[in-house]
Amino acid sequence: MNVAVVGVGLIGGSVALAARERAGAHVTGFDPAGIDAPGVVDAVAGSVGEAVADADIVVVAAPVSALPSAVEAALASSSAVVTDVGSTKRTLVETVDHPRFVGGHPLAGAETAGAEHARADLFAGATWYLTPTPRTEGVLYDRLYRFLADLGARPQALDPDTHDTLMAAVSHLPHVLANVLVAQAARALDAEGERLPATGPSFRDATRVAGANPALWEQIYRANRSALGAQIDDLVRRLGEVRGLLDDGDLGAWQAQAARQRGALLEVGLAGRPVREVRVSVPNKPGVVARIALALGRAGINITDMSLAPKADNRTGIIALWVGSADADRAIELVCELGYPAA
Amino acid sequence: MNVAVVGVGLIGGSVALAARERAGAHVTGFDPAGIDAPGVVDAVAGSVGEAVADADIVVVAAPVSALPSAVEAALASSSAVVTDVGSTKRTLVETVDHPRFVGGHPLAGAETAGAEHARADLFAGATWYLTPTPRTEGVLYDRLYRFLADLGARPQALDPDTHDTLMAAVSHLPHVLANVLVAQAARALDAEGERLPATGPSFRDATRVAGANPALWEQIYRANRSALGAQIDDLVRRLGEVRGLLDDGDLGAWQAQAARQRGALLEVGLAGRPVREVRVSVPNKPGVVARIALALGRAGINITDMSLAPKADNRTGIIALWVGSADADRAIELVCELGYPAA
Repeated sequence: MNVAVVGVGLIGGSVALAARERAGAHVTGFDPAGIDAPGVVDAVAGSVGEAVADADIVVVAAPVSALPSAVEAALASSSAVVTDVGSTKRTLVETVDHPRFVGGHPLAGAETAGAEHARADLFAGATWYLTPTPRTEGVLYDRLYRFLADLGARPQALDPDTHDTLMAAVSHLPHVLANVLVAQAARALDAEGERLPATGPSFRDATRVAGANPALWEQIYRANRSALGAQIDDLVRRLGEVRGLLDDGDLGAWQAQAARQRGALLEVGLAGRPVREVRVSVPNKPGVVARIALALGRAGINITDMSLAPKADNRTGIIALWVGSADADRAIELVCELGYPAA
Repeated sequence: MNVAVVGVGLIGGSVALAARERAGAHVTGFDPAGIDAPGVVDAVAGSVGEAVADADIVVVAAPVSALPSAVEAALASSSAVVTDVGSTKRTLVETVDHPRFVGGHPLAGAETAGAEHARADLFAGATWYLTPTPRTEGVLYDRLYRFLADLGARPQALDPDTHDTLMAAVSHLPHVLANVLVAQAARALDAEGERLPATGPSFRDATRVAGANPALWEQIYRANRSALGAQIDDLVRRLGEVRGLLDDGDLGAWQAQAARQRGALLEVGLAGRPVREVRVSVPNKPGVVARIALALGRAGINITDMSLAPKADNRTGIIALWVGSADADRAIELVCELGYPAA
């Protein structure tokens, strides 16, 4: 199988490595800025057209703003199924509207850049959304689906609108609120000449992603402005309801409902049984996830879910693992023994 | 020195223990529900009046709704300086308005209950806000200030309005938003028949406190409804600005500003030099903070700040430490060696 990767950064490079190692594919890569990570691809092409000419599958991992033209070029020069890895889907899918194009979005590695961080296991266990339309050719969708499963991902079909609404609700809106909260607290503290008190972690947790990667997030917000705007409007409406509750509502019942909802979302929603989140601090390099997964596997501990979040320095990251509540303490012990701090 | 503690739960019990161990005080306690933690106080009284009769200092650690009457009773039956530990200040200070009453709020232990978890080091390094008014008697304020410093806390004077605004901005508003975010995500997912995707940790972080301790937070929201309402209004206004930015604003500049603001708030704001947050998972019992502080101290690592956050199960907790950026990796190593997972 021939795979072409257009845009060889963290995601494109990891697709290339995983395609070669896990799917036995021959990978041709093209990157307008050149590919400075030796050994990531089998062959380097000089243009999109050259890269995709013989491809069965084309993965376009270009920046959001360059996606439409790169996808169109890939479709024009090949007979392959073409997909992308952008974090919003509706606008692109409407713009391209082609039977050989299937929008895609892997939930992994969004915060890091650079093919030098690429690794074959980046997508292990990660949800990879696909947004087929009624025009999508079934045999090509099937080819893409099986390829992504071979990479270790869990492909999941979703219509583009739903995808963008979900991402707005669970990712883009928390990022917006983190920014707004720091601006507001900075103003409140500044007005009073006060420093941030060493209060509990709620503010730190809620603002951890404030200001994350401006170049990337500018594009994500913009590309998803319709769904994100709707989520902001919904939030404003809900805040109006909270204003009413503050005057004479049942705040205790409201608080208790939130506890139930979060529990349902994060526990049963993910696994069908009570799970606990374990966070591990790791160096951002190949093999770490595998070491951890092997150690837990040997101890008979099942990893229900896992998410990777590189830190701002790009050299380290956090792995969040979800394991059965009864296994969590043992899992922390095992991971700590490997030398990775966990809690 | 005679200290009376009215309401002997986690905070009151910890004040009692610290007063005896660190300030050499004789402590009389009264709790309407009885005191079931033997050894926390020197003497158990049968009423507020009996507890405070000979007191130099009275600490009222009753629930928010019971504060005004308990404080009034303590003032009526003693000549002591009387303080409270409630998490909002304006309403109580206006209601009581007495030269011997000084509102107080220690930033520690808010999430736990029960004298059985009390510990003498609960306030070590914790900010303890005090809200004197122009009517406050200076000699009594000084007596209270020195007592709190003896407990290990860092007392800091603030006017009641400023206190409530700060708490609304950095604590109560993040709690409100956590609740609203889970409700909104639950709705979005439910409408689409989807489960929460295993995306990055932004949603989990932003909603970690959703639904925390309904009985307690109902009272906190209600007591601070004026300042919290103003912060919600300000947030809604800011969200309107974000709506405008989504259409044609400079989202990159906005994102970059948020990064600078968070950095200023959490790093330089706390310490005057770059610090890093280290999180340690610990059992919720005496001596843990001391062990960690000693280990870091022996290694010459200065703890710039520290905050304790018990987990929902009340048996374990998170200690967030702030240390110089250059010392952070070494600090994590040392704490991990003590057997406490850290990252």
